[in-house]
Amino acid sequence: MSLIDNLQWRYATKKYDSSLKVNETDVQKIVEAARLAPTSSGLQQFRVLVISNQTIKDKLVEVSFGQEIVKDCSHLLVFASWEKYTEDLIDNAADFSTDVRELPRGQFSSYTEKLKRVLLSQSIEENFSHTAKQAYIGMAMSIAQAAELKIDATPMEGFENDKVDEILDLKSKGLKSVLMLPIGYRDMENDWNANLKKVRIPMEEFAIEIK
Amino acid sequence: MSLIDNLQWRYATKKYDSSLKVNETDVQKIVEAARLAPTSSGLQQFRVLVISNQTIKDKLVEVSFGQEIVKDCSHLLVFASWEKYTEDLIDNAADFSTDVRELPRGQFSSYTEKLKRVLLSQSIEENFSHTAKQAYIGMAMSIAQAAELKIDATPMEGFENDKVDEILDLKSKGLKSVLMLPIGYRDMENDWNANLKKVRIPMEEFAIEIK
Repeated sequence: MSLIDNLQWRYATKKYDSSLKVNETDVQKIVEAARLAPTSSGLQQFRVLVISNQTIKDKLVEVSFGQEIVKDCSHLLVFASWEKYTEDLIDNAADFSTDVRELPRGQFSSYTEKLKRVLLSQSIEENFSHTAKQAYIGMAMSIAQAAELKIDATPMEGFENDKVDEILDLKSKGLKSVLMLPIGYRDMENDWNANLKKVRIPMEEFAIEIK
Repeated sequence: MSLIDNLQWRYATKKYDSSLKVNETDVQKIVEAARLAPTSSGLQQFRVLVISNQTIKDKLVEVSFGQEIVKDCSHLLVFASWEKYTEDLIDNAADFSTDVRELPRGQFSSYTEKLKRVLLSQSIEENFSHTAKQAYIGMAMSIAQAAELKIDATPMEGFENDKVDEILDLKSKGLKSVLMLPIGYRDMENDWNANLKKVRIPMEEFAIEIK
């Protein structure tokens, strides 16, 4: 099936069958798609927490406005981004990049220095807004990959970020939570959203052509 | 080819062959993937400008730090988001949704009213940060779709947003530019980035498992 067919198939699942688990190979593919996502200057400003621990999932429901998909899903992915840019984070990414490419370290130093001047002069809020945006790209790729595997997924912004960060000890990693993505298998009979028609504005309103 | 293979295939193309054009059917598919992307509360907070007009592309190079991919690409997609939330935008989306689903208008009014309370109490900067994030999901889907069709694409944040908004008359539409995505076909021989190895941090560093 094509990506478009997969995107037509998927929907924001609101009730998971908690007895059905996604196999580890498929979970790995869903995370791999996020790992391969492009990011600004290739910095990969986000990480993915892959949570199958039921106790932790139960705790996270309480800080997610009681949304039961957080505990009923098979695996809960949490996308968390760098809380801010630092010289070290940028230098390490640059060194890793030249190492992988078997190029001398510092090969792209004029670019890296410019990047540091821009990013390190921003406020911490601007930094996090930028790193958070990269996580959206990653989550999108995970959603597309899940759909390819006919695995359900529910993109979620609605949770108490600070409390999630605390439960997952993200501060010690220099990360802050951005998005959740429960994955698993829909409970067709009990999901009010399962049979509702997908709503998208028409193409002629969505796309603005300049020929 | 699977999404993962497609993501391995793609790279940030830095030189396009300006003589090669993407056919309209494929352009439509790339935009359609963005249209089908999930967005926060299903509001579809962004639009896609599809620019094939050479004069406009030439003008946009000047406000994109001279990056020639903006003019050499076949089509330039510009992702632009609502500059802020308004009562009307949210009400219209809610009414459209119930109309499409053949449900009475106001069926989900308690949700809509809550959404308005939250979004309309935010600053204009918080609003735009949120609408901009949704565009990243759309762009990701377009990148994945382009790769499925073996069409090159280059995600871009680096341009002078205000000037792009002016050239494209986005203010009159209540939109602000967020991202550019040139699409087209790589000029292999002249693209310094075409043969460089893809750099991604290893899975064991990217994914944090909580079992």
